[in-house]
Formats: sequence, structure tokens, C-alpha cells
Amino acid sequence: MKVQNYEQAEQRLVDMPGATRCKVRKLIGEADGAPSFSMRQFEVAPGGHTPRHQHPYEHEVYVISGRGAVMEGDEARPIAMGDVIFVAPGEEHQFRNTGDEPLRFLCLVPNTGA
Amino acid sequence: MKVQNYEQAEQRLVDMPGATRCKVRKLIGEADGAPSFSMRQFEVAPGGHTPRHQHPYEHEVYVISGRGAVMEGDEARPIAMGDVIFVAPGEEHQFRNTGDEPLRFLCLVPNTGA
Repeated sequence: MKVQNYEQAEQRLVDMPGATRCKVRKLIGEADGAPSFSMRQFEVAPGGHTPRHQHPYEHEVYVISGRGAVMEGDEARPIAMGDVIFVAPGEEHQFRNTGDEPLRFLCLVPNTGA
Repeated sequence: MKVQNYEQAEQRLVDMPGATRCKVRKLIGEADGAPSFSMRQFEVAPGGHTPRHQHPYEHEVYVISGRGAVMEGDEARPIAMGDVIFVAPGEEHQFRNTGDEPLRFLCLVPNTGA
């Protein structure tokens, strides 16, 4: 069993093309023996965003703090603390911080997408 | 894409033997088209706990609010907001609220365990 505060996990800059002011911590993954899916926490600074893209695997997202929008194609859907987002395989999406404090969210993916 | 606050998901009592003062909301699952794993949120009232058990699938847990302990066999490991717990397949475990406010946590499982 692994028990750890999220702050104990290393935080690194997301260096994917299209990501701006976006950091990630891997909280649970294959290195811990997770057999099928992985938990990551993203932190997007005000004005920042994740890449606008799509891929053949899903995202399961929970917003921990802050305010923002998830782009569903060209539509911006507001998100805030306590919101849950399911991005199905193949759906174009992007997470944006539209507020003035960090937008923090969990984003879980199958290990094939981690 | 599904975007919803967690409070919009139905909350029901956990009626498994060994569970006390424990409620659950299914946030993302097969009904949403999730292909491989499911997100649930548990809320354990002060003095309550989940069943003490083990099963052949993993848990990936994130504590949203409150204080408690996760039992790793007979050892109580304290948990609080922002803590991450990975329960490997086959590990005995139980979540207990040892505080005076609700203990709320996400618990994700492969769809075979949902």
C-alpha cells in the first residue's frame, strides 16, 4: 500500500507542444504496480492551458481547486472545484485556467495513455 | 463529453456488510461509456468506515476533505486532504473516519470491480 501526500510527488513542467503554464505530478502509476490505470494531478497557472488534442484513450477528471473551462471542440464549458469531466476516447479537448488562482485537477488515464 | 458537479450524481448508502455510515456516488462509469475504469466518491460520516476486506483488483484513492485512517492489515495509517492511496490487488484495507467532519475521497477501480 502506498500512502503519500500529493505534494511529495515530483512536479514537472508539461513540455508537450500546445501546453502553456502547465505542470504535472504522477501520483499513482505503473511504477507503483498499478495494473491498468494511472492518476496524475495537473496544475495550470492563470492564463495557461493543456494541449488542444484528441487521442484514442479516455480521461477521467476531477477538479480540486480553481476555475477554468474545458473546450469541447469549440465550445468552452465552465469548470470549478468539485466538477467531474469524462472525456471519451477520440474527443477533442483542452483544459484552460480562466481564473486568477491555480487550476488543479486529477486526470486519470489507462496505462496505455500514461 | 460529460461535465457535471459531483453533487449532481445520486448519493446512496453503502449497504455492503461491514460498512457503517458510508455513502457513495458513482461519478464516471460504464453507463457514461467509460471503457476500462470507474470513478466513485465516498463520504464516510464521523465514526463510520468502509468494509475491511480485500479483492483481486486495485483502488486508486484521493482524499478530498476530512481526516481518517486507512487500515493496512492491522496498522492504521493516517490520511487527510490531499493524500493519495494506492491499494494493490489482494491487499486488505479499510477506510475509517477518525475526525469530526465527513471524510470524502475518490476511489477509482477497474470496471471489473465497479
